[in-house]
Amino acid sequence: MKEYILLIDTTDAKGLVYNVSKILFANNLNIEQNAEYVDEETKKFFMRSVISGDLNKEILLKELKEVLPAESTIKLTTKEKKDIVLLATKESHVLGDLLIRYIDGELNANIKAVIANHDYLQDLVEKFDIPFHCISAEDMSREEHEELVINIINEYSPELIVLAKYMRILTPKFVQAYPQKVLNIHHSFLPAFIGANPYKQAHHRGVKIIGATAHYVTDDLDEGPIIAQDVVRVDHTYSWQDMRRAGRNVEKVVLSNALQLMLEDRVFVYGNKTVIL
Amino acid sequence: MKEYILLIDTTDAKGLVYNVSKILFANNLNIEQNAEYVDEETKKFFMRSVISGDLNKEILLKELKEVLPAESTIKLTTKEKKDIVLLATKESHVLGDLLIRYIDGELNANIKAVIANHDYLQDLVEKFDIPFHCISAEDMSREEHEELVINIINEYSPELIVLAKYMRILTPKFVQAYPQKVLNIHHSFLPAFIGANPYKQAHHRGVKIIGATAHYVTDDLDEGPIIAQDVVRVDHTYSWQDMRRAGRNVEKVVLSNALQLMLEDRVFVYGNKTVIL
Amino acid sequence: MKEYILLIDTTDAKGLVYNVSKILFANNLNIEQNAEYVDEETKKFFMRSVISGDLNKEILLKELKEVLPAESTIKLTTKEKKDIVLLATKESHVLGDLLIRYIDGELNANIKAVIANHDYLQDLVEKFDIPFHCISAEDMSREEHEELVINIINEYSPELIVLAKYMRILTPKFVQAYPQKVLNIHHSFLPAFIGANPYKQAHHRGVKIIGATAHYVTDDLDEGPIIAQDVVRVDHTYSWQDMRRAGRNVEKVVLSNALQLMLEDRVFVYGNKTVIL
Amino acid sequence: MKEYILLIDTTDAKGLVYNVSKILFANNLNIEQNAEYVDEETKKFFMRSVISGDLNKEILLKELKEVLPAESTIKLTTKEKKDIVLLATKESHVLGDLLIRYIDGELNANIKAVIANHDYLQDLVEKFDIPFHCISAEDMSREEHEELVINIINEYSPELIVLAKYMRILTPKFVQAYPQKVLNIHHSFLPAFIGANPYKQAHHRGVKIIGATAHYVTDDLDEGPIIAQDVVRVDHTYSWQDMRRAGRNVEKVVLSNALQLMLEDRVFVYGNKTVIL
Repeated sequence: MKEYILLIDTTDAKGLVYNVSKILFANNLNIEQNAEYVDEETKKFFMRSVISGDLNKEILLKELKEVLPAESTIKLTTKEKKDIVLLATKESHVLGDLLIRYIDGELNANIKAVIANHDYLQDLVEKFDIPFHCISAEDMSREEHEELVINIINEYSPELIVLAKYMRILTPKFVQAYPQKVLNIHHSFLPAFIGANPYKQAHHRGVKIIGATAHYVTDDLDEGPIIAQDVVRVDHTYSWQDMRRAGRNVEKVVLSNALQLMLEDRVFVYGNKTVIL
Repeated sequence: MKEYILLIDTTDAKGLVYNVSKILFANNLNIEQNAEYVDEETKKFFMRSVISGDLNKEILLKELKEVLPAESTIKLTTKEKKDIVLLATKESHVLGDLLIRYIDGELNANIKAVIANHDYLQDLVEKFDIPFHCISAEDMSREEHEELVINIINEYSPELIVLAKYMRILTPKFVQAYPQKVLNIHHSFLPAFIGANPYKQAHHRGVKIIGATAHYVTDDLDEGPIIAQDVVRVDHTYSWQDMRRAGRNVEKVVLSNALQLMLEDRVFVYGNKTVIL
Repeated sequence: MKEYILLIDTTDAKGLVYNVSKILFANNLNIEQNAEYVDEETKKFFMRSVISGDLNKEILLKELKEVLPAESTIKLTTKEKKDIVLLATKESHVLGDLLIRYIDGELNANIKAVIANHDYLQDLVEKFDIPFHCISAEDMSREEHEELVINIINEYSPELIVLAKYMRILTPKFVQAYPQKVLNIHHSFLPAFIGANPYKQAHHRGVKIIGATAHYVTDDLDEGPIIAQDVVRVDHTYSWQDMRRAGRNVEKVVLSNALQLMLEDRVFVYGNKTVIL
Repeated sequence: MKEYILLIDTTDAKGLVYNVSKILFANNLNIEQNAEYVDEETKKFFMRSVISGDLNKEILLKELKEVLPAESTIKLTTKEKKDIVLLATKESHVLGDLLIRYIDGELNANIKAVIANHDYLQDLVEKFDIPFHCISAEDMSREEHEELVINIINEYSPELIVLAKYMRILTPKFVQAYPQKVLNIHHSFLPAFIGANPYKQAHHRGVKIIGATAHYVTDDLDEGPIIAQDVVRVDHTYSWQDMRRAGRNVEKVVLSNALQLMLEDRVFVYGNKTVIL
């Protein structure tokens, strides 16, 4: 039987679980997995249900809207692969890791294209028969460059855009074009070491642990809602390049974990934080 | 409003969430937090709901029994502190950690007594005005010793018995007297290094990571359902005593985390595994 | 045979290891363990040798001075317990953890006294027969209060001062009174969340990992050389109080690990960083 | 100036450091980095020095032999890339990870060839212009198959053989052909879950943490000296396939870390354990 994912983001109210499950039951749908979370502070209610059965999407959404508070966000998706576009610059570790997973069939996504502002990664990407677009940023303004990139992205209409160590700073225009659709991996354990050269910053501070953070991109650099983080131990023997090498292992795993959560529709955003069900 | 914890352990069936939430709604009870899990392999369904409102325990349980499969386990508890008894031997790190938390008010339990087979820990325990019972195991059989210990335990009718580095091996009789009520901390990362001297075993094997495991005690030594585990890195410079010192930090934190989960009624057992909601 | 710890902090030069080991050999001293580190960037050389045999401290230091660069720091200590004084405020988890280790004989130190700016912890400390000094900071300036605290500390002439969740901000005067002798545990993973209420800050940022950092106190709040750090995972279900409870486990273990390193004379400081041999 | 790595594995004796550094000094060689370790239990002494200058390998080794105990192992290598051969079966995650690092120039090795007992990975390997040899094991004995594999390996005379999820069990003949030259990644946190299907075993045991272990291959399956290990948290929601997916991230990072240590000549073996300097 076909499976669907029902996502509800609303304000907590009495009888929510009852009302939602009643509708699912009445429509002869089975709940395969269910997860809810109520944030006591904000009174937000989040629910992710994996349901199965025959359903009429319009009817179900209509019935749910009727029992849920006015401003609720209700989504119904399937487990089909999502189209995604990757952006990159020069480093290959995150991109390469995604490509290896991709051809192995592990990634529940279709990588429609890779867009990069250098051509370093062209050979690598083309080995995997994926369209590669090199859009250099030289001799043009940030806005002009972004316009070109956005045009290419939109040819593919991706559901998600993954910044795989894409080092260009995005303008608010880009962010607004794809709200909550842009995933970035920052090579530090946020909120420490935001901005450039976090490994050099970390080395300078003499930390004994470094990390990486996957987050949604917002208008504020490195400030967006955090989806996943992880760390690795370092010590005084590590030059900043050694820290970078160790950190890269964390970057690619964290980015991949965050992407997987997004592909499985497990990530809710409210305020500047995420709830992961 | 008073809060209750509803725990359901049953077989998955269509409409479970609907039927349960319907009864809660009909009884004017609000779901503060809800967590469910369906194990696809075994079709087991687990649910933990924090509910609030005025409820009649007998009526609610009766109504729930009617809509749930025959062999379901349904429990309704409050958030009141549970009475617990600690068993110890000579080592103070786990016991001492619990005592410090206790007088700080962090432990949602009443430590009714400490029972030990040596008197080493008497001074420490009595500093905290907790009854200390020294029951030596010398010059008697294992069964005789256990009988004495069980008699003391039963004076306090605890909900949980915590083996805080209690080094005596328990007989099946003890285990059966307190099914799913005995929490142990084993000083290894199970299933590695079961039995005696796991730090020596770990040192001998030359592992680079050691750990500790909190689990329910069953008839099979160190084989019971695992509740929590954690690890710490070691290296070639560690003697087995160094491993033990590093490991002790893990033991006390893991034991405390597992105990907290149990005190919050978050741990379900099925087969030889746990589901933690 | 008696063991000594030889510590050398100097500028790297050809033949350093040769010259130092030659002197040790000539004095019939055996090297039990040896560790060196050369920082390529700064050309600093650090060495920690555990040596055994009969030695004349003055002669050995004199001979070593002759072969080492002019500005070298050379120390020779034994493995004897160091006298330490603990400072605390209200929280018991770090202090209590040290006290439990202390009476167990694990701490290679003599806890001479506990000084606190509240009397909350008096009962706890006095259970362990350790002098407790309550120096309230009310109705006086920071400097006045510190003067009183310094006077008490100096009665004990400690080698190290451990801030066991001592929440008063220290003035430069205090720091200069005990250069590289004051160990603090900050309840965040520095450099993230410096200052007050790091758990609230962490909760607000929506991080998925929190941590604690043990560091030397310097004039700049939470900016001193880092000695040890560790982390623990959290998620959206954690209130800031839940983060604090999880974080406290990290705080006490990290502080204890850092203290142990200092008691074993393993920590060198240069610039604002540490080298740990 | 050219750098060399001097490796000494011997029995501890008075004056070892002095005698060795004296010879280096006398030969006008500078010690760039030095690390020693004395195992108190076995009295073994290990030393790894990075030295620079003009040296005559034969003369230096001869001089060192004269001052070291009879059965010492003394090696002098350079930092040149080592030739390695990879063995694989069907899974691509470890192999792919190495290939990505390889073309990025991160691996200080020459991957001479990949040998696999299936052709699944042929396309992937040939994208990277590396010779791929498919040697099927069907319709022949284990010994016959190994003979063919050994013959291919020997064409390349590799310094190290990396089993990148190569699932064939090696005979003692293979192991003896390449003593301390065969690196394997086992998909469990040894010594837990040795043998086949460790993820299924882990799932069955209900552990809350899984891991991977990189080790030297010996005659005893999964029993060889451990070089590196790491773990990742799992919970009751993980099927064994979910555990495998999470575990694969650990496998590739651990294997890569272990390989890097071996390529940097940092790994000593004694008994069934490793010392890593």
